Amino acid sequence: MDAISVIRTKRDRGELSGEQIDWVIDAYTRGTVADEQMSSLAMAILLNGMNRTEIARWTAAMIASGERMSFDSLSRPTADKHSTGGVGDKITLPLAPLVAACGAAVPQLSGRGLGHTGGTLDKLESIPGWRALLSNEEMLSVLDSTGAVICAAGDGLAPADKKLYALRDVTGTVEAIPLIASSIMSKKIAEGTGSLVLDVKVGSGAFMKNLEDARELASTMVALGTDSGVRTVALLTDMSTPLGLTAGNALEVRESVEVLAGGGPADVVELTLALAREMLTAAGLPDADPAKALADGSAMDVWRRMISAQGGDPDAELPVARERHIVTAPASGVLTRLDAYDIGLAAWRLGAGRARKEDPVQAGAGVELHAKPGDTVTAGQPLLTLHTDTPEKFDYALEPLSTAFDIAPAGTAFTQGPIVLDRIS
Amino acid sequence: MDAISVIRTKRDRGELSGEQIDWVIDAYTRGTVADEQMSSLAMAILLNGMNRTEIARWTAAMIASGERMSFDSLSRPTADKHSTGGVGDKITLPLAPLVAACGAAVPQLSGRGLGHTGGTLDKLESIPGWRALLSNEEMLSVLDSTGAVICAAGDGLAPADKKLYALRDVTGTVEAIPLIASSIMSKKIAEGTGSLVLDVKVGSGAFMKNLEDARELASTMVALGTDSGVRTVALLTDMSTPLGLTAGNALEVRESVEVLAGGGPADVVELTLALAREMLTAAGLPDADPAKALADGSAMDVWRRMISAQGGDPDAELPVARERHIVTAPASGVLTRLDAYDIGLAAWRLGAGRARKEDPVQAGAGVELHAKPGDTVTAGQPLLTLHTDTPEKFDYALEPLSTAFDIAPAGTAFTQGPIVLDRIS
Repeated sequence: MDAISVIRTKRDRGELSGEQIDWVIDAYTRGTVADEQMSSLAMAILLNGMNRTEIARWTAAMIASGERMSFDSLSRPTADKHSTGGVGDKITLPLAPLVAACGAAVPQLSGRGLGHTGGTLDKLESIPGWRALLSNEEMLSVLDSTGAVICAAGDGLAPADKKLYALRDVTGTVEAIPLIASSIMSKKIAEGTGSLVLDVKVGSGAFMKNLEDARELASTMVALGTDSGVRTVALLTDMSTPLGLTAGNALEVRESVEVLAGGGPADVVELTLALAREMLTAAGLPDADPAKALADGSAMDVWRRMISAQGGDPDAELPVARERHIVTAPASGVLTRLDAYDIGLAAWRLGAGRARKEDPVQAGAGVELHAKPGDTVTAGQPLLTLHTDTPEKFDYALEPLSTAFDIAPAGTAFTQGPIVLDRIS
Repeated sequence: MDAISVIRTKRDRGELSGEQIDWVIDAYTRGTVADEQMSSLAMAILLNGMNRTEIARWTAAMIASGERMSFDSLSRPTADKHSTGGVGDKITLPLAPLVAACGAAVPQLSGRGLGHTGGTLDKLESIPGWRALLSNEEMLSVLDSTGAVICAAGDGLAPADKKLYALRDVTGTVEAIPLIASSIMSKKIAEGTGSLVLDVKVGSGAFMKNLEDARELASTMVALGTDSGVRTVALLTDMSTPLGLTAGNALEVRESVEVLAGGGPADVVELTLALAREMLTAAGLPDADPAKALADGSAMDVWRRMISAQGGDPDAELPVARERHIVTAPASGVLTRLDAYDIGLAAWRLGAGRARKEDPVQAGAGVELHAKPGDTVTAGQPLLTLHTDTPEKFDYALEPLSTAFDIAPAGTAFTQGPIVLDRIS
């Protein structure tokens, strides 16, 4: 077995054998297959695809590259969620404690933001004292005592994926559905959750720009999970406009706490509840009532205990950016479009995100929205507030915002589509 | 400008801009673009292609990565030849002194063998004392005094190509026509030859297995040369069966000397003369008579002077392999097929070629043919003689030979096709 023959097989549109896949993933993890060989293979996979058999084996090989965790010691059923990433997607923050408050155990191994989409860990790190890095024992202990934990995945989980993800990020090979699906699912299956709900984002602010690609990704992942004994369901959800009224780290924590307090923007509440119901059903708790757990404060209780258990102070003041800039509505009328990608890019340029893995993020930076599609606006009213510690970046951040919204004449009929576009199980 | 945006352009079937190409070649040569980025770009080019404008710019950028040589100081017109590589392809050895004997200056920057095809430098190094590595000054001096020089290309010539070629070799991206064409032509144009004849091999023993691919490669290279002011012509020649009666280093030198002495196998003489006529015409010497220069010993004189000028002894005994093994004809009849690839692979396995650039080759190893397609053979007569210093490799070398030939019943009509299949200018 050698790297070139594996690359050639896929390059020439052949099907990789199980032995080829096992060998190449193992050899890459050990360093026998070089980065430049894996990246040409990744490009061949991106352009020529993999079938379901190949994707399943690829995922299994990535799982086999590391350790597998187990939540068998917990008395509660486990439910996990994964989002493919969007703008203003703070859903994990209210969702994990909410589902825990309803009786499931929620182990949320999360990531950091890269590019225009935010990262759950970056958001939570804006809470003074909060720690993302836990040992496996600490993670199990927080989960056992509070019902939910949100932390970084340990190095032992699917190390092949960790290495391949970093490589794809710099070689233009991120956007390959087989590689996205196997990357997500290898970590979730190795993590050992009993059930999994996938939030597959569709639209300008998501990796998947159209429903067709999103459906293919979702059904690939549902099949992978199901075949590995994980009860898996996917919701395809709208990411053409940001979720809620904030994109940025501390800004989104503040909005999440509003939701846990029984308030918050309608779309965030709607999606949080939809995902909570799916998670609870998949975990065997179909009769739980997440709306009640938001209303009666029990979800907020879990949040406070979870943040405290990881060193954070749930009552601490959240960081605020040093400088602000307000973008006003250039005309009166109906806001018919507010583009998720443009807003995400502006938030990223303001300092909320990073260009390279080792870059720091600004806790206070981001974009606050004062109107959402369907709202009536008046010329000169604040439309967006930009927050940053680096005001020299305002011009750079304003650039994408020039094409970020459309205002139609007053009285123009406008109906915002549903958040949940489809369900795949 | 960044590597990922260049990779994405080609990945998504776009046309690379001149600025993107200049930037990526320069940045790769300097090490700013990493190997793993260039290899995913190479795979995208292999699968999605480049148009003529892109290939021309890519070639120009590789030339610009290093120095350009000049033969303006020579009183004779320069003529160069390049073969895309085949089995038993010793043509450069008699051809360079022959064309020099007819009045042109022949600067042959040659390569080493890799895989099943032999390398001109490996062949000449079987002559005791002969040196492949010359400084630019030494090269010009040999060329000036003898009319011909065959040596390794200096490190200063198209360093981007040198780096990219080594990378393609280990990443399954060798077989991309735009990259093959630009690799060959960047070195030939940088070398500064006034005219160039390309010997594009077609058939089992060549990189190009069919006429269509070979024609595309040839016309791409002819256009690149012509646009750079090099008079360029390509012959498409048959490589379905080995050239001559030998494949191996010293074995092929011996056969080349026979041709220079006025003898040698008919196909080697025919192709040598066809290429010589093209080179002389391209160099502005259409009235020269290469057949005469073979017959009257003047080509042999140049050969002897050229070998001596590079430290070799033209009268020295050539190395002979320690062990032999004879393959006999299993039946009587007409030999209708003798496969170039299988013979090349056997010669390589016997030690005539190398698996990695740093491997040594055996001077005496190779395969001697006792019959060619069209010949009548008798059961039990010697068909092939295998030569090696490592007889433990006989079984390994015999493996491909089991499918290397067909013998049809005596009297079966058989016509060997022409050697020169097409001409592109």
